[in-house]
Amino acid sequence: MLRMAHPMMHHRTPQFSAIFSETKAMLEKVFQTRNDALMLASSGSGAMEAAVTNLCSPGDTIIYVNGGKFGERWGKIAAKHGVNVVEIKVEWGHAVSVDAVREALEAHPHARGVFVQASETSTTTEHPIREIAALTRSLPKCALVVDAITALGVIDMPMDAWGLDVVISGSQKAFMLPPGLAMIALSEKAWALTEEAKCPRFYFDLAVERKNQQRGKDTTAWTPAASLIIGLNEVLKMMFEEGLDELYARHALLARAARAGVKALGMELVSKAPATSATGAYVPEGIDGGAFVKYLRDVMGVTFAGGQDHLKGKIVRIAHLGYYDAFDITTAMSAIEMALGKFGHPVNMGAGVAAAQDVLLERFPKA
Amino acid sequence: MLRMAHPMMHHRTPQFSAIFSETKAMLEKVFQTRNDALMLASSGSGAMEAAVTNLCSPGDTIIYVNGGKFGERWGKIAAKHGVNVVEIKVEWGHAVSVDAVREALEAHPHARGVFVQASETSTTTEHPIREIAALTRSLPKCALVVDAITALGVIDMPMDAWGLDVVISGSQKAFMLPPGLAMIALSEKAWALTEEAKCPRFYFDLAVERKNQQRGKDTTAWTPAASLIIGLNEVLKMMFEEGLDELYARHALLARAARAGVKALGMELVSKAPATSATGAYVPEGIDGGAFVKYLRDVMGVTFAGGQDHLKGKIVRIAHLGYYDAFDITTAMSAIEMALGKFGHPVNMGAGVAAAQDVLLERFPKA
Repeated sequence: MLRMAHPMMHHRTPQFSAIFSETKAMLEKVFQTRNDALMLASSGSGAMEAAVTNLCSPGDTIIYVNGGKFGERWGKIAAKHGVNVVEIKVEWGHAVSVDAVREALEAHPHARGVFVQASETSTTTEHPIREIAALTRSLPKCALVVDAITALGVIDMPMDAWGLDVVISGSQKAFMLPPGLAMIALSEKAWALTEEAKCPRFYFDLAVERKNQQRGKDTTAWTPAASLIIGLNEVLKMMFEEGLDELYARHALLARAARAGVKALGMELVSKAPATSATGAYVPEGIDGGAFVKYLRDVMGVTFAGGQDHLKGKIVRIAHLGYYDAFDITTAMSAIEMALGKFGHPVNMGAGVAAAQDVLLERFPKA
Repeated sequence: MLRMAHPMMHHRTPQFSAIFSETKAMLEKVFQTRNDALMLASSGSGAMEAAVTNLCSPGDTIIYVNGGKFGERWGKIAAKHGVNVVEIKVEWGHAVSVDAVREALEAHPHARGVFVQASETSTTTEHPIREIAALTRSLPKCALVVDAITALGVIDMPMDAWGLDVVISGSQKAFMLPPGLAMIALSEKAWALTEEAKCPRFYFDLAVERKNQQRGKDTTAWTPAASLIIGLNEVLKMMFEEGLDELYARHALLARAARAGVKALGMELVSKAPATSATGAYVPEGIDGGAFVKYLRDVMGVTFAGGQDHLKGKIVRIAHLGYYDAFDITTAMSAIEMALGKFGHPVNMGAGVAAAQDVLLERFPKA
């Protein structure tokens, strides 16, 4: 991404506007929407807050799925803005049940929206977005708001076809860039709700952004994260060169391989509905997961994430999105196997790698 | 800034925390404060909104200086949050009078703050921040909030010594980076006001950021604009290598040279209190300033800014901050002279360059 380090093109020039416009059009193809995909100089949490303040008024009620650290955040944001919440509490590692969402919608017919993660990163779990959308799309005043920060560009999630109302993403996951750029798209239903929403907003006023970012204007309300937008332009071209179907298939294959690998090592998956973006597995009893991840990173030079809150010290998370390909998974398995050995755990050396390879073979043609 | 294009270091690692901590300590030296200089993944407008929501409650009153596009923005932000405003309207190109601020403070003794630009970029004008601070520092519940986006790192503006309560900056001006990182520091008085402030805020909740960014924790509440923070680390080292006093002197000299140059070409300065960051000058009668700036950029390859609102088409603005040095000023003058000629204006070729050089000679030692 050397283009991001070039002396900065000024962002109020036709040169930048041309890149902006091209980037936005490509981004809308990844969102799979005919509406605007807006770019915000912010991390994903800012766009999550934007979804709340642009759809709700103080005193409104929303339903949110709390099945991990990110789901929990919807509740915190709503509370800050005087929005009432109906929490659907889900055991960590489980997907929300569609029935629970249906019941909440029936009990709260005036709910402004259902707020959920497509992929809850803290537990490496995917929620059934498409099925939830089948419930909300017939409700004219209730939006389905999807945090897709680790799902967009990872799994096929056609916004318009499924009837998703707000989809949020960020630069640093599937888009392989440094963090600092958030993306957000709204359905026509969601845009209509913004007109009634009275939560105060300025920097994250999406109607103002839409007016500026629309085709022909091709600018942003506030100074854009220009280097990241220029980087995104390159990344999107790479993604279309690979082909979106191929890209989704690659992610799915890597996820399957990672699951096969950790299972072959006798490790239990954290999730009952495992994500395509990352795989979480419990470290064996008696091993401190914090020390395990630290050893992998500092001694072996291979980066994994650990667990948060009550999963802290208990799990290891293997990412497989964006740049990741077959040998990132074999490397991850190899490192985990050797680290298990170093931590005194009996391990059948090569078993995790072999199980992953059995899956990864599908990635390569006949010689 | 090739370091910004490296494969991204994960932002929740000791490696990144070490860079973060070092960067923050250097940044506080530029702010000249013993308090925290916080970094936000946002452009400057987000930090401006943060100043309002973290200091005020709906129904509070603030005083703001409206002498240009950026001053005007304080009023728009406050209105969005139900904060009452007392506007001190200043003719574009003039600095606010200290007496006008004194009178407003006397008429509104419960005002939560005075909101002002150190350097109003749209009119290339500096406001008398130090003198205003002398009024607000004795008022225990009234903060002086300074947008220093084109002032910090350009002029010597010691936050603690002058008694500034909130100082805001951004990555893309004196710090020479792409946009997308805002910085903000608060005095103890301002931190005390945040505890009473009831405007809803989540992404821009500065108390939450302070808890995360404090020394020892060295992280951010939300995903940081990591590549820009890594770039800022390099930039600050460059700034300290030059020396802050030398850096301020360089900026002052370049500004003097630019003013001398345009005056020698018979162009009138836009500002009665010209800024150190940029010089605005009226284009001669009969020349369309928009076409003039476009010609300079697209044909001659030299970038200037034009005017906004009622100055649109009437002025040209010459930046001289950050990387700029002597030959950027002579290049600017040379381009303006030749463009004036191309637009059919009688011009004494070389006069602007010569007048600038007379000043710039001070930058070089005896041979």
